[in-house]
Amino acid sequence: MTREELFQLIRRKKSFLCVGLDSDLSKIPEVLKNSDDPIFEFNKLIIKHTHDSAIAFKTNLAFYESLGVQGWQSLEKTIEFLKGFDVLTIADAKRGDIGNTSKMYAKAFFEKLDFDAVTVAPYMGTDSVSPFLEYANKWVILLALTSNKGAFDFQFSKNQETSRKLFEEVIIRSQQWGNPENMMYVVGATQANMLADIRKIAPNHFLLVPGVGAQGGSLEEVAKFGLNDQCGLIVNSSREVIFASKEDDFAEKAGLKARELQLKMQIILKENNLL
Amino acid sequence: MTREELFQLIRRKKSFLCVGLDSDLSKIPEVLKNSDDPIFEFNKLIIKHTHDSAIAFKTNLAFYESLGVQGWQSLEKTIEFLKGFDVLTIADAKRGDIGNTSKMYAKAFFEKLDFDAVTVAPYMGTDSVSPFLEYANKWVILLALTSNKGAFDFQFSKNQETSRKLFEEVIIRSQQWGNPENMMYVVGATQANMLADIRKIAPNHFLLVPGVGAQGGSLEEVAKFGLNDQCGLIVNSSREVIFASKEDDFAEKAGLKARELQLKMQIILKENNLL
Repeated sequence: MTREELFQLIRRKKSFLCVGLDSDLSKIPEVLKNSDDPIFEFNKLIIKHTHDSAIAFKTNLAFYESLGVQGWQSLEKTIEFLKGFDVLTIADAKRGDIGNTSKMYAKAFFEKLDFDAVTVAPYMGTDSVSPFLEYANKWVILLALTSNKGAFDFQFSKNQETSRKLFEEVIIRSQQWGNPENMMYVVGATQANMLADIRKIAPNHFLLVPGVGAQGGSLEEVAKFGLNDQCGLIVNSSREVIFASKEDDFAEKAGLKARELQLKMQIILKENNLL
Repeated sequence: MTREELFQLIRRKKSFLCVGLDSDLSKIPEVLKNSDDPIFEFNKLIIKHTHDSAIAFKTNLAFYESLGVQGWQSLEKTIEFLKGFDVLTIADAKRGDIGNTSKMYAKAFFEKLDFDAVTVAPYMGTDSVSPFLEYANKWVILLALTSNKGAFDFQFSKNQETSRKLFEEVIIRSQQWGNPENMMYVVGATQANMLADIRKIAPNHFLLVPGVGAQGGSLEEVAKFGLNDQCGLIVNSSREVIFASKEDDFAEKAGLKARELQLKMQIILKENNLL
């Protein structure tokens, strides 16, 4: 999917919502627990009830890996099922290794599983990221400023020569490797006030924003500081949507929650003349 | 495995060699290609012929993930098989995410797969690492200074307040999260001269050192700067050992290469009064 196609998808659906499939087996409604593949059954129903409101789905690899081979099977079935819908598919994997190994990770996510995008960690630098950038119409979503407490350990560390924070260095330096057509950045919603600074150094890139909802970030704040002329934002919500209810009505409730977020986004998009 | 047990293992085998199972399907000898599970068959033969010389085996997750469910099956069989040997098992996964997600990754590698150690990326800070540290007798191997070209992008970035490089900040700050009994650091052999500086801030930690062999690092240099009074080094060799030959004699040749490295290590250990 190209950047222009992504923007048109956003306009068509009047939404910039990503639904995070952090499908934790221990939180899945009882009614599904006896099926052959509870995770896939859960995902299928969540996707069916939320895809009208969402432009992207993000599978969090940890929740699949923790179940071993069975989890990997659920993941393969989920990405296959997602291909029937008009959405961007994101593997939230936070991979990154030396060149020949990152090449294999890129193969895993872009060839074997055929995701549209994968999250990548920047610590190991250029050759850990570049192999992911060699695929046409695929996206690297590079970690810049994350939404967790630990973000303050290293990401704000100021460089002695440039006085820039590490996450700013990541954003600036990585623009030598990729561009707004094949690279996005992860910027946590819990750091929404930093979005204005980030837009100064990355005006055109899409930003994937986790942390709205369960982690406490505000959609309005994120939009205020983060929107650009192609929207430029994909806001993720995981637990708040997919575990909106643990009863038999879980899929309907997830659908309603996603719709609620989409409607807020529609207003924001309209107010900013993006529809 | 405790630190003392690891040191005794090193003394028993007169080796601090880790064999990296970067088992690339495209490089596996033809003779195995028609078996049901070529990767596992390859690993089994490599392990059988090298375990006498090695104190650890490291599976590089990318090579398994790139094969999807089948690769994950090969991985599960490999770790199961490794349990029959007197070795430390390392999942080279370079994971790291927000707390609740890292918890699931820890579950994947320490419970589902039951590895002894897992490599973790530090970019997301404390809560991305801590969940891995909650397992008794398991190890976090935190990326500090890696062996690739991209290491120079961020890892040497000097902090404005402390004048310390980012990898030094990682080593210092992470000592508030873990200790030499449950945490090691990745330090690339291609940066062997940095090991002396690292030993000043982490005198007691074990260091996992990749990059000897195919990537150009020198074993003698690594030992000179990196040894401590419990050896404190695990030196990894992947391609140089496992792909020593691509012919039918590949396992024997891998065994010979591992033995060659072990003998060099035996001399080093003896010279340093560690045997």
